[in-house]
Amino acid sequence: MNKIKVAIWGFGAMGQGMAKVLLGKKGIEITGVCDINPAIVGKGINDILNVPTDNPNVIITADIKEAIKPASCDVCLLATDSFVKKSFDKMELLLNLGVNVITSAEEMAYPKANEPELAKKLDKIAKANNVSILGTGINPGLVMDLLAICLSGAMTDVESVLCRRVNSLSPFGPTVMEEQGVGISEAEFNKGVADGHLAGHVGFNESVTMIADGLGLEIDDFKQQMKPIITTVDRKSPYGFAAAGNLAGVNMTAQGTKSGKLVIDMYHPQQIEPETEGTNTGDYIVLKGTPEINMQITPEIDGGLGTIAMCINCIPQVINADSGLITMLDIPVPRAIMGDFTKLVKPEKRIKP
Amino acid sequence: MNKIKVAIWGFGAMGQGMAKVLLGKKGIEITGVCDINPAIVGKGINDILNVPTDNPNVIITADIKEAIKPASCDVCLLATDSFVKKSFDKMELLLNLGVNVITSAEEMAYPKANEPELAKKLDKIAKANNVSILGTGINPGLVMDLLAICLSGAMTDVESVLCRRVNSLSPFGPTVMEEQGVGISEAEFNKGVADGHLAGHVGFNESVTMIADGLGLEIDDFKQQMKPIITTVDRKSPYGFAAAGNLAGVNMTAQGTKSGKLVIDMYHPQQIEPETEGTNTGDYIVLKGTPEINMQITPEIDGGLGTIAMCINCIPQVINADSGLITMLDIPVPRAIMGDFTKLVKPEKRIKP
Repeated sequence: MNKIKVAIWGFGAMGQGMAKVLLGKKGIEITGVCDINPAIVGKGINDILNVPTDNPNVIITADIKEAIKPASCDVCLLATDSFVKKSFDKMELLLNLGVNVITSAEEMAYPKANEPELAKKLDKIAKANNVSILGTGINPGLVMDLLAICLSGAMTDVESVLCRRVNSLSPFGPTVMEEQGVGISEAEFNKGVADGHLAGHVGFNESVTMIADGLGLEIDDFKQQMKPIITTVDRKSPYGFAAAGNLAGVNMTAQGTKSGKLVIDMYHPQQIEPETEGTNTGDYIVLKGTPEINMQITPEIDGGLGTIAMCINCIPQVINADSGLITMLDIPVPRAIMGDFTKLVKPEKRIKP
Repeated sequence: MNKIKVAIWGFGAMGQGMAKVLLGKKGIEITGVCDINPAIVGKGINDILNVPTDNPNVIITADIKEAIKPASCDVCLLATDSFVKKSFDKMELLLNLGVNVITSAEEMAYPKANEPELAKKLDKIAKANNVSILGTGINPGLVMDLLAICLSGAMTDVESVLCRRVNSLSPFGPTVMEEQGVGISEAEFNKGVADGHLAGHVGFNESVTMIADGLGLEIDDFKQQMKPIITTVDRKSPYGFAAAGNLAGVNMTAQGTKSGKLVIDMYHPQQIEPETEGTNTGDYIVLKGTPEINMQITPEIDGGLGTIAMCINCIPQVINADSGLITMLDIPVPRAIMGDFTKLVKPEKRIKP
């Protein structure tokens, strides 16, 4: 069988991480890469990634239509944005090229939550082109939504859901340091919140709505909060530094309520070097109901690698899916793929020649 | 929309537990119950279950063809056996009646593992009747297979899988006490193993094969072991008693290997009152690879309720599935259903009038 032909749009830390993993997988070929960064446009991916591979040395182009020859691309991995609105034109273009799409854009994990109209449009465009589009990642996408949903399969009755992800930002680069306010003062934090510059974690509304829809919990209100995590000692990570008195990160919380009663509770503090002040990292899920389920994963699942894995591991599911906008609720459970990817494609689904 | 019409075959502890939960769910109607126990044949289920309901007071019959009017049954829950061979005729009959089937028979969670020929036959029969058949439960079905598979979705590389379920048999009744050897002497245990009377946990080969197939791990050998758990103190549970020196339960272990290397490791001690001698219960999964994942659920997910929930929560998925023999690898993630079941049935799938 032909290999599955994959293009990557966005060749930053995430896109490059995806490419490195894909080059080690069976039944996959990278056929195009698009990025606008002048420092890498025109270079070959094999030269940048420096891993042994028999994949052709794809040249990075700033023009997506050059990167994607529709007749020879099955799936595009889109890793450029966090928001539906900002990436809508890119997704529309890809779908109209007749290519399946997997994006790490957080809002795309459940776009109905914040962008119901754009979600409907994407569904329509994907169906018209007989392809499917999925947003996924570690969070949203797995640890604060799908995993809780999967565990609830063992319950006859769910009263409430608590998801808590306590993670370290230390492995991340300068972009994440800036997005999460690492090192800034409390005054800068307040200004960043006021002018919308500081987003913190994107994905709570998506996770809460996915859980509520998946379980039929009928949430009628959603709220979220962002608070600074002020360090009392100097903290240093490879790309971040927070002096005592400044922000080591942010504590994000959210609640889905029904008639004023808390039904879905989200707690997600993110900071560099959390252990410095006694915070141990982990992913925690508590499902109240019958029977109760109390899960913990320690340390937390690595966010960068986790998102790369989720996007790549869903490639067969996205090819196999009915056309349209799909979510993690619609497809078979994600799984690591250690064998040949092409073996997981349904016989009636086409891989391009 | 019409309610989903469900029949139950086997009205023991499991079947009655399923019925109790179904009576509290929206969009579900119990339309038939079959059991051969003379003590309950001819009685109404509402009188036996004694829960308030507007479901008709279905009369238990020993004749499955009386319990299932094909034109008015969408799904049959089959809870009579553990093995494919023993329940094959029942499943064949149900499929030929044009009814979707969900069974708690442990071997049916991945029937290809122990009964590849019968699995092929079931697939063929189900397809010929345009219905689907699924085996599920807490274990096999979730905690020692699907959950590990789902977590691996966040990994780019899996080297090995360890699943450990340390559970208490104390909540279970006389049948389980007998099956698991609770209270017998070591000599009786050895005799029970030799003559095949003592099965212990059924499902390891199914779980190991499901994980191996799901992740593409290419196991080439499977082994399992059963050892007595001898108590040093008297232990007593509602339906079990183990005197000091006798069996409190059995320790089941299994290994899936590739070229002699351990790839999938299963550990499942089951006993009454494990805390008496310092054993705390829980479900544990350790995935070695990139990134590593270390999960624990404490205490373990309740096995009886968990199996009831898994069977019931998969009703929409089984109706929505393509026809044939399906496994937990094929369908969207299981989830507790707190809303109307009929809302989860795809528009193109028929619920009978």
